[in-house]
Amino acid sequence: MPRYHLTIEYDGRPFVGWQRQDNGPSVQAALERAMAALDGGPREVYGAGRTDSGVHALAQSAHVDLEKDLAPGKVRDALNHYLGPDPISVLSARRVDDRFHARFSAVRRGYVYRIIPRRARLALEAGRAWRTPRALDVAAMHEAAQSLVGMHDFTTFRDARCQAETPVKSIDAIAVREVDGEVRINVEAISFLHRQVRSITGSLVEVGNGKWSVGDFAGALAAADRTRCGPVAPPDGLYLAFVRYA
Amino acid sequence: MPRYHLTIEYDGRPFVGWQRQDNGPSVQAALERAMAALDGGPREVYGAGRTDSGVHALAQSAHVDLEKDLAPGKVRDALNHYLGPDPISVLSARRVDDRFHARFSAVRRGYVYRIIPRRARLALEAGRAWRTPRALDVAAMHEAAQSLVGMHDFTTFRDARCQAETPVKSIDAIAVREVDGEVRINVEAISFLHRQVRSITGSLVEVGNGKWSVGDFAGALAAADRTRCGPVAPPDGLYLAFVRYA
Repeated sequence: MPRYHLTIEYDGRPFVGWQRQDNGPSVQAALERAMAALDGGPREVYGAGRTDSGVHALAQSAHVDLEKDLAPGKVRDALNHYLGPDPISVLSARRVDDRFHARFSAVRRGYVYRIIPRRARLALEAGRAWRTPRALDVAAMHEAAQSLVGMHDFTTFRDARCQAETPVKSIDAIAVREVDGEVRINVEAISFLHRQVRSITGSLVEVGNGKWSVGDFAGALAAADRTRCGPVAPPDGLYLAFVRYA
Repeated sequence: MPRYHLTIEYDGRPFVGWQRQDNGPSVQAALERAMAALDGGPREVYGAGRTDSGVHALAQSAHVDLEKDLAPGKVRDALNHYLGPDPISVLSARRVDDRFHARFSAVRRGYVYRIIPRRARLALEAGRAWRTPRALDVAAMHEAAQSLVGMHDFTTFRDARCQAETPVKSIDAIAVREVDGEVRINVEAISFLHRQVRSITGSLVEVGNGKWSVGDFAGALAAADRTRCGPVAPPDGLYLAFVRYA
């Protein structure tokens, strides 16, 4: 059975998240329905990682084994056809060998979090960014974020329900920048803990609005104590930006 | 009655357009309902210009006379409250004197049209940009667009139902650029004809995909003949970007 690697964009709002669940529509289930329509039977889609309900993807990554041996461009176009009105788009498909695994072969993942600091509610970007009512000190946020780089116990910044075996993870790079009036947080790691980026973002916003000092942020990380996390940022502003392979 | 000048953002998708109509919800009617809730009676909102169904605004401009003498920040916040789930946001409100008129005092209007050239359908930007299946020659589009600058008979590029007294209008500036993988058309004029930007955009895309030469575009303008217009671009990618006052 030929294996295909897919790059997928989606708007997370109508979904319970990436993963198939009993309580509502998921991106994975929508893709699997489209695969079944294309390939004539149930097919399992393996994602590079789960995204929560309301979290978006600029470029999620997944693989699937199909019965039919189809040109990759045909797979992309047919899946987009069968996906119907769901806000999911298969950006590209390529043939890969059977050793490729969307999750286990990934060597780096990147997320971006979009914050729009303004008083007025969001109309065009509602559900697609987090609005904070006041301006943020972006330089302080960037400085605080640098304490995350490297290997740390991220207990403070992971959800209590996180199922990872260890809270010790490495963040390769994180940058907080102002782009077109927005604040963007770009973060890269081999892999992430559950709600890690949203937990980090919420705490960085505490620094940005002056409630926390840069030292407070570093102290919260060092404490390895979930109760020291700031308010977790909403899913709206979070985008899985890329998954890289060796 | 104090007069307020409002700057308004909206997502055009759920609306029949800016203007109050019998056939569905309009931005104007939604704002007027919010005004009535705030001010205790029917109030008429005057916009700087109409936008068609599905056309968005980054910064539409309008004025309204209220009975109550309220602080501008209060007007902004209360309107955003009363607007409820409609994807409309009052970005700012300011007191102006009675000679200010959102439409007649405007000295320049700017639109931006967003095109995303790619094979795969749009998920995150569905309804918010126009997808063209192939790459576009942006330099040729920009060159062709320069023939529009200045005073011209724009019969070719206005809708047959346009109610303006004359097709002779002036375009002050137009630029076609590639930004973050998108093609953006920015155009500025004192005022625009009905569907003028979408007509221009559709014809520029004919240049971008090689069906028309730069000379063909200039010839279509010079012909002053509506049948020479290319396919009109969809509303999805069009944003009223600014309205400027003296």
